[in-house]
Amino acid sequence: MRSGIKVFAPASVANVACGFDILGFALEKPGDEIIARTTDRTGLSISKITGDQGRLPYDIFKNTAGLAALRLLESLDMQSRGIELEIHKKMPFGSGLGSSAASAAGAVVAVNELVGRPLTKSELLPFAVLGEQVADGAYHADNVGPALLGGLLLIRDNDVLDFYRIPVPIGLTAAVVYPHIEILTKDARNIISKEITLQSHIKQSGNLAGFVLGMLQSNYELIAKSLSDQIIEPQRAQMIPHFYEVKNAALNQDALGCSISGAGPSIFALYNNSLKAENGALAMQEVFNRNKIISDIFVSPINLEGTVVY
Amino acid sequence: MRSGIKVFAPASVANVACGFDILGFALEKPGDEIIARTTDRTGLSISKITGDQGRLPYDIFKNTAGLAALRLLESLDMQSRGIELEIHKKMPFGSGLGSSAASAAGAVVAVNELVGRPLTKSELLPFAVLGEQVADGAYHADNVGPALLGGLLLIRDNDVLDFYRIPVPIGLTAAVVYPHIEILTKDARNIISKEITLQSHIKQSGNLAGFVLGMLQSNYELIAKSLSDQIIEPQRAQMIPHFYEVKNAALNQDALGCSISGAGPSIFALYNNSLKAENGALAMQEVFNRNKIISDIFVSPINLEGTVVY
Repeated sequence: MRSGIKVFAPASVANVACGFDILGFALEKPGDEIIARTTDRTGLSISKITGDQGRLPYDIFKNTAGLAALRLLESLDMQSRGIELEIHKKMPFGSGLGSSAASAAGAVVAVNELVGRPLTKSELLPFAVLGEQVADGAYHADNVGPALLGGLLLIRDNDVLDFYRIPVPIGLTAAVVYPHIEILTKDARNIISKEITLQSHIKQSGNLAGFVLGMLQSNYELIAKSLSDQIIEPQRAQMIPHFYEVKNAALNQDALGCSISGAGPSIFALYNNSLKAENGALAMQEVFNRNKIISDIFVSPINLEGTVVY
Repeated sequence: MRSGIKVFAPASVANVACGFDILGFALEKPGDEIIARTTDRTGLSISKITGDQGRLPYDIFKNTAGLAALRLLESLDMQSRGIELEIHKKMPFGSGLGSSAASAAGAVVAVNELVGRPLTKSELLPFAVLGEQVADGAYHADNVGPALLGGLLLIRDNDVLDFYRIPVPIGLTAAVVYPHIEILTKDARNIISKEITLQSHIKQSGNLAGFVLGMLQSNYELIAKSLSDQIIEPQRAQMIPHFYEVKNAALNQDALGCSISGAGPSIFALYNNSLKAENGALAMQEVFNRNKIISDIFVSPINLEGTVVY
């Protein structure tokens, strides 16, 4: 048996209502499994993909995990090493839960570990971002950052990948519902207006600053007031049937706030304890049940570890 | 001699680069002196104004201090009390340092004290905001909040006046230069575009979140990266001659950042210690000196007290 490294890379929630393209947090589940293994052949290859219904490419230049791993190996001048990747998708595509980001994060951690861990996790981020770019075209780290590093992250500047951990209060728990409707991130980005009013910028800024302050001071009342999206949610809500009913269901279970996870269609809500979050998730799912839409729910504290080696 | 209350209300810096309309901090100087005194006549009046070169109205409905005090007295059902105000302007108008805000804050504190302090300082804020509205037409508290309450304030929502103190690191010091050029806040607001790009919103948001996180974690490096204004400064800089030279002078003295104070023409810079701030203020002033523009400089830590009764 050849030596191999197996890692788990988690799903993540980007945007977080008031932080379009700059905030994201990791969930404990679902997530992808990536295995990296040395082979006798030369160079990187993908040997196996499961859970994707045949939709992911084996071409490493077109696969988020493959390209992320390749860019890492190139920077280490190890691109000729014989390495093969197995990708076990255990989370849905096009769900707004950072599926491609998880695969990219998993790939760089697995390969880095396999070659003797030359880089720290933070140093791996640029390569994971380059990998994820294959999937949605944008260079940003609001999913791949949390998937890799865990926690609630601020990506202060996506261009230079300047990122910071925002501490979260103990007890903070996410409830996520994923309705089985596919939205492509590219499409979800295209419907967003390239201009916004100064007034909506001011409102959103107040909430973003309140959100950061609330997290650092464990001020749940402030977090709840601040978890509001004036800009993106009103534009994307139309893509998700029954969005506002689901949101109301979450808020009726005492959610701090509820909005679209990433580009959707998943919807997340935050709660100040896990019992409320469980009730919230069930209430959100019930709306889709009533409307004959199949959905999955996930309840999770903020995952502070990100991608881990088994 | 009739009983009287004398208060000092400080200048303030609003916007603070990345927080247009939502961030402001108080300076220790300059500021206004307001005296409130009981009289035998009925109702509120302004008995004396100094330091204004005859430009401020005695009509309480047109004077920021007068109207703020009146709205407070009305809410206490004390509008028929005989009270007179003296307003001693000790700071420039139209300077971008919250001159009208200081007078409004001073007036409500002095009158509240005179009638037995029925309200807390925080409860006085709405009346001070109503007073300041006379001067610039907008209902917002990014100057009047800090002038009244002190500190670095986040006005999360100006409509409902939801505000929070943001802790600042010890040593944080402001250097301010006020060139003797008058800009009316109304004019400075009118040149600002009512629409911005989503991209500039994202950049500004990243910096705002970084600024709040940096303040709470005393992370000067993060504060320095975040003290940047993508949106307002480029539009208003043209109103202030030599703005970019002054900014460079401040940054060359190791400023964390430098931008326009409120609507200008004053320019502020933040430093991580007071010695640097003193050098910074002199360097900023030197640019105006070279260009034959008279200016005043102020060096001050963040004033944590706001308006105080002598």
